[in-house]
Amino acid sequence: MLKEINAVQYLEGLPKTSCEVLTREEALQIRINEKSYTITMRTPGNDDILAAGLLFSEGIINQPDDILEIHETPTPGEDFTLAVDVQIKEAVLANQNIFNRAIASSASCGVCGKTDICDLVVPVKLNTTPDKLEIGRIPQMLEKMRALQETFEKTGGSHAAALLTIGGGVLGVREDIGRHNAVDKVIGELFLQGRLHLAEIMLISGRVSYEIVAKCSRAKISFLLAVSAPSSLAVDFCDRSGITLIGFCRDNRATVYTHSENIQQSV
Amino acid sequence: MLKEINAVQYLEGLPKTSCEVLTREEALQIRINEKSYTITMRTPGNDDILAAGLLFSEGIINQPDDILEIHETPTPGEDFTLAVDVQIKEAVLANQNIFNRAIASSASCGVCGKTDICDLVVPVKLNTTPDKLEIGRIPQMLEKMRALQETFEKTGGSHAAALLTIGGGVLGVREDIGRHNAVDKVIGELFLQGRLHLAEIMLISGRVSYEIVAKCSRAKISFLLAVSAPSSLAVDFCDRSGITLIGFCRDNRATVYTHSENIQQSV
Repeated sequence: MLKEINAVQYLEGLPKTSCEVLTREEALQIRINEKSYTITMRTPGNDDILAAGLLFSEGIINQPDDILEIHETPTPGEDFTLAVDVQIKEAVLANQNIFNRAIASSASCGVCGKTDICDLVVPVKLNTTPDKLEIGRIPQMLEKMRALQETFEKTGGSHAAALLTIGGGVLGVREDIGRHNAVDKVIGELFLQGRLHLAEIMLISGRVSYEIVAKCSRAKISFLLAVSAPSSLAVDFCDRSGITLIGFCRDNRATVYTHSENIQQSV
Repeated sequence: MLKEINAVQYLEGLPKTSCEVLTREEALQIRINEKSYTITMRTPGNDDILAAGLLFSEGIINQPDDILEIHETPTPGEDFTLAVDVQIKEAVLANQNIFNRAIASSASCGVCGKTDICDLVVPVKLNTTPDKLEIGRIPQMLEKMRALQETFEKTGGSHAAALLTIGGGVLGVREDIGRHNAVDKVIGELFLQGRLHLAEIMLISGRVSYEIVAKCSRAKISFLLAVSAPSSLAVDFCDRSGITLIGFCRDNRATVYTHSENIQQSV
């Protein structure tokens, strides 16, 4: 979702007026069974899949039919959603202290707002051995994602996350002003479609920090590919959870940080 | 703070082993007067200024002597801090419901984890007219910041934030795996030194979203310069709070989104 504004562009010190296209950023409230769960800043649009992906990532829901209904409330006088109401089966919420937990947990990163370090997610080991990823396929995967980054193309200011099969088939691509939201959106989309089990590769346009890995681990995704660098904790977490982490995927290069046994050279 | 690991680099499809340097990412608990306030993921080091900057940004403290003491507790068996204890004068905390608020607020972005949209910060208008910024000085400011980005130089995976005077003098530069942390650290450093009032320009290495602007507004910084794009809300918030926002500061270019009356061409 875009917004156009007038600005002044300086090139070599000389000004000219220009019309600039910006990525939209607005606050979204996510409610569960009529109670406020959290707020996240996001690019409006596809708020249903964002909410579903976030609640799946946070471990509140496990399968699409845990959700009875998703309803969006518009912002008065504006063209974007103010709040998403997610109706979840009461049996699913039983024994989950989500509102205590929710207040202390984060809209986007699975960490911030928490008050105890023991609240951090512990890596869950993937319980399958993935098919090998052919290293030579990565540039085509990047091209496919880039071709679908419509917002980035116009604004230069949005992140993207794509889910793919090991053969390079694109299952979904989503963009957002926030890295974590783009990941939640693409996971939420496949989750609601009941197709998340098909996703073998997560490809993201930026850097990899702990919380992105936590989301991939939760979604049982075997390969995490990124255009930029991972953090130390992202590498550690991928190592322990069995995720093959590949960074700096650009310019015909790729750096494999973990589980290089799952990579094969192209023939 | 860095970590070295072994990895496999592929170039044109061919592997070679390499030693990769990563930006460290670890969890930090921030406690106020012995109670847990929040957790943030950050690059270890300078955790005292991170905590001070965060608590200032969140409006809990207003001046350096609101803090009685800052104490760091190491992580057992590791070389980084587990928790920062900030002792704040009880009189400062009186009438602040910070632990209710804290649980619902964010370590880093000032938004996530909040449960009501009305909790979002409303822009406070700067009450002074700044000196004009000479547009031709921006490339030198970028060069100065870049020269001090030691972690980025080695890892390609960290953000930087610098505070400068209108003449281009560097007051401080800090790096972190998280954009918001880099901003909190450099603000916290000058805050603790009692020099924050000298800062006229914030320069950041990445994009500008709402929460970065909120932190600058709180610190009464007149100019916000960024290497990448702003969001729509960042532009709106700068417009309303009187901050001059300049994005895409790179390659002898700069795009002025708000308050272009505060810019002057170089002579």
